[in-house]
Amino acid sequence: MTSTPGATPPASSLDPAVAARLKRGADGLVPAIAQQYDTGEVLMLGWMDDEALHRTLTTGRCTYWSRSRQEYWVKGDTSGHVQHVKSVALDCDADTVLVKVDQTGAACHTGDRTCFDADALPLGK
Amino acid sequence: MTSTPGATPPASSLDPAVAARLKRGADGLVPAIAQQYDTGEVLMLGWMDDEALHRTLTTGRCTYWSRSRQEYWVKGDTSGHVQHVKSVALDCDADTVLVKVDQTGAACHTGDRTCFDADALPLGK
Repeated sequence: MTSTPGATPPASSLDPAVAARLKRGADGLVPAIAQQYDTGEVLMLGWMDDEALHRTLTTGRCTYWSRSRQEYWVKGDTSGHVQHVKSVALDCDADTVLVKVDQTGAACHTGDRTCFDADALPLGK
Repeated sequence: MTSTPGATPPASSLDPAVAARLKRGADGLVPAIAQQYDTGEVLMLGWMDDEALHRTLTTGRCTYWSRSRQEYWVKGDTSGHVQHVKSVALDCDADTVLVKVDQTGAACHTGDRTCFDADALPLGK
């Protein structure tokens, strides 16, 4: 599923030193977890390609790749529910991004604070 | 990338009501975020198929599907660094799982508490 380490990264403006380490899925994307920097709330999970990660690192605003719309998506551009980037980290095998953000308003399109507020699964069944 | 809603779920012991809603990637998996339930630390991201989610919901121990080894993986069985499940939620479009756990020791195979401790990316470049 993950790309071959050392494979040529896709063309983007991402720092080549980061691009060389990033392990993308077969679709060229990595999952990106957005977490509220002070409360620790997990807000949502989006997807990034190299260019979305570059824009997230350089613009101060969280940018994702929309798998359904097949386009870049600056969180909050439509809703006003902006994510200001506080820090960005890769995980130990460089196939997941954790972005700590300051979330304006609701992270979820439903109006909930996080995308995980509404659908708790029962344990034990 | 995501499966067709309403497509026949893969055979597993997962509650059919949950399986019918779950939106899997092309590889049949969903990303699963493990978060320390009391501190809010994001510990790691793993992958689950229906059966791994079922086992996570019913055994009290976080179970993932290892993409590299192509096998189920009960976190802590080898390392002792067990994840006791406190709660499980799907996100708003049912393509991501958030598991709140009580993590014994280090979540990361490197010995770090979380998989995101060692590789902060510089902002602005």
